[in-house]
Amino acid sequence: MKALILAAGQGRRQKENGDSKPLIPLLGLSFIERVILTAKKSGIKEFLIVTGYNAGKIRKHLRNGDKLGVEIDYIHNAEWRKGNGVSVLKAKDYLHEPFILLMADHLFDDKILFELQEQTIEDDVCVLCVDKNHHKYLDVKDATKVFMEDGQIKDIGKQLNNYNGIDTGIFLCTPVIFDTLEQSIDSGNDSLAAGMRILANRHKMKVFDISNKYWLDVDDDSALKNAKSLLIERLRKNTDGPISRILNRPISIKISELLLKTKITPNQISLVSFITSFFGALFFYVGEYIFLIIGGILVQLSSIIDGCDGEVARLKLIQTRYGGWFDAVLDRYADAIIIFGMIHGHWLLHNDIVIWTIGFAALVGSFLNSYTADKYDAIFKNRIEKTNKWRMGRDVRLFLIFLGALSNQILITLAILAIISNFESIRRLIMLKFRHA
Amino acid sequence: MKALILAAGQGRRQKENGDSKPLIPLLGLSFIERVILTAKKSGIKEFLIVTGYNAGKIRKHLRNGDKLGVEIDYIHNAEWRKGNGVSVLKAKDYLHEPFILLMADHLFDDKILFELQEQTIEDDVCVLCVDKNHHKYLDVKDATKVFMEDGQIKDIGKQLNNYNGIDTGIFLCTPVIFDTLEQSIDSGNDSLAAGMRILANRHKMKVFDISNKYWLDVDDDSALKNAKSLLIERLRKNTDGPISRILNRPISIKISELLLKTKITPNQISLVSFITSFFGALFFYVGEYIFLIIGGILVQLSSIIDGCDGEVARLKLIQTRYGGWFDAVLDRYADAIIIFGMIHGHWLLHNDIVIWTIGFAALVGSFLNSYTADKYDAIFKNRIEKTNKWRMGRDVRLFLIFLGALSNQILITLAILAIISNFESIRRLIMLKFRHA
Repeated sequence: MKALILAAGQGRRQKENGDSKPLIPLLGLSFIERVILTAKKSGIKEFLIVTGYNAGKIRKHLRNGDKLGVEIDYIHNAEWRKGNGVSVLKAKDYLHEPFILLMADHLFDDKILFELQEQTIEDDVCVLCVDKNHHKYLDVKDATKVFMEDGQIKDIGKQLNNYNGIDTGIFLCTPVIFDTLEQSIDSGNDSLAAGMRILANRHKMKVFDISNKYWLDVDDDSALKNAKSLLIERLRKNTDGPISRILNRPISIKISELLLKTKITPNQISLVSFITSFFGALFFYVGEYIFLIIGGILVQLSSIIDGCDGEVARLKLIQTRYGGWFDAVLDRYADAIIIFGMIHGHWLLHNDIVIWTIGFAALVGSFLNSYTADKYDAIFKNRIEKTNKWRMGRDVRLFLIFLGALSNQILITLAILAIISNFESIRRLIMLKFRHA
Repeated sequence: MKALILAAGQGRRQKENGDSKPLIPLLGLSFIERVILTAKKSGIKEFLIVTGYNAGKIRKHLRNGDKLGVEIDYIHNAEWRKGNGVSVLKAKDYLHEPFILLMADHLFDDKILFELQEQTIEDDVCVLCVDKNHHKYLDVKDATKVFMEDGQIKDIGKQLNNYNGIDTGIFLCTPVIFDTLEQSIDSGNDSLAAGMRILANRHKMKVFDISNKYWLDVDDDSALKNAKSLLIERLRKNTDGPISRILNRPISIKISELLLKTKITPNQISLVSFITSFFGALFFYVGEYIFLIIGGILVQLSSIIDGCDGEVARLKLIQTRYGGWFDAVLDRYADAIIIFGMIHGHWLLHNDIVIWTIGFAALVGSFLNSYTADKYDAIFKNRIEKTNKWRMGRDVRLFLIFLGALSNQILITLAILAIISNFESIRRLIMLKFRHA
């Protein structure tokens, strides 16, 4: 399916001669790039962009779409000062099949388009995605409201008093929209909403409920701030462990914001995290207290940086499956090297052979924690215990090592790691037996 | 969808008063149980069985299906000496929707029914699964042949000279088959094929090509032998490593054949394999050569037994995802315990601290081999390098340990393990970067 993106307007509250909203960069991408890449995730590869204000800048910014891995064609709307219905109508000669209609300055969840594309519609119907339970970041005052009944739009407009949903600006259209817009423009109203109202009167304007998926219209500066908060909030995963939630994530997000301004790739960040661990392990290897402190700090730092690769990938919409795999494998090697460094340093100073056995058990436990969780996810296609807020993950293990190094208690730290990680693995082995019996 | 199973006949070459073919046990299941469980794998839960010869025994054997996790109803055909068309017709009052028709003494690949159920057919059409390129185990002389053209059956019968496919006895039927059978029986031919021929003349008998999936009609003693060979051949996986292929699998299959006669579960077999490893490790732990030999033999034995859990589960059609996970996690613990035993035994005798470092590296490499492969499979949904006949898997690692123990070369063995397993993990990390870039 093709997508038509409206990027002609100037933005009502935009400074004269400033960049139009679609070009404003936010966390690594301009708005229009984010719209295109979000749509691409749901399988859309061909885009038609209606330009007007700042047309040249937008073309120069996106070119033919190669950089984003999509195909982009442009239609110029010299009458961009008119209502947005005129912009849509400019695409009349280019679209003869159902298409997706998007606004260039909106944020939205890619799952919306996944589900929207699965809707089957008749030739004379359009579908509007409607938000019934809008989230805190949305400025309702400025939004276009809809009143709906039995899955149909009954009325639509900014000034609606009696409404039960918000217009998200995401549509599944058939070419019938062009005839409808010609009618509404002829009768003196050049807004897209006016065309929709005609379809609504014919009972041909259907509703698609986005339920709890997010979207945001970035209208003004405060909406821009909200957009940033929304994107950042979504970086937190419900599988984040306690240390990740409380300590690592707030710091890693700050680092990611800086990294997004560079060309550093997520895989390079994974490698930097690994190298930081490696140096941490090297300091542990020597064994003396002062080196333990430096090593501990490096290990905790690597744990924080380990969050950035995923954050940058998700914000730039460039997650790859290889990237996830690469990160996971490097993490396992980092875990091994850190524990080896601890064992060696302690043995060097104390010549106590028991450290090898304890360290060996800690390594086995650490590995098995990752292995049982990952393998479980793979086989059962759902995450192990996603509700456990205090799960014993890598964030906790590395934090314990950090504390152990700062307090010069390597042997006790490894013993604790060995006991709780192996206990957790064996607990999973037994517990899941009954859950899946 | 419901399945109708024909289990009324006596079997042409069956001894008088002997068990009918559906009841003959083969590798842990009777034929009719295997038919039901195979169909269950493709989602079929309700069965209608037409009994005749040995009706009481069949009912007693299967009861209401509870034991197999399905629902079974019975229809008795007192005229079971007549053709099999009569048996199908007995179900007329019970089936008013499309249904699957199966023979109680056939083996077949569950993927056939998966795909067959996805076919959409009109009310007046039946579909026959046809085998175009039958395998070596099929006795073509005795089979019902079909001649087909443009996806339609043109002719069907045992004596066909000009044929381009074999009737597999697997059908997707609509109730039209009952009217057709009434016609053919009225005209003096009470076989199912006669009914099919009437549909074929109306161009209402469609073909479904099973392509390379297996099936087998178990007609006589030699077909029974072939059935056994076929089931056993299918236990070999194309992911089996070289030691598994050449040494372990042939032995584990013999053991599994014995285990199938007991009530031992696959998870219990996984546990026995783990305990065998544990005792192997215990002998290694002591370090002296004579104990190494015993330990090495136990480790190799556990590697062989490790094949049996999957074999028994697959032959009894009771694979569970938990079982696969349980086995994998126990294998990782066994790997760790074995390597720990080797390290400790060597260190005890030689007091050479370097063994700990080498052993630690061997453990990391072993784990990472499993981790990279499993995590890769999980993320990319296809197996890592399935074409590599000489892949370095657990079968090879445990065999190297076996050889190392027999030759009293623990240090060298661990060094070899450390080098090749880590080399392989790092190779995957780099190689896959380019494959997925």
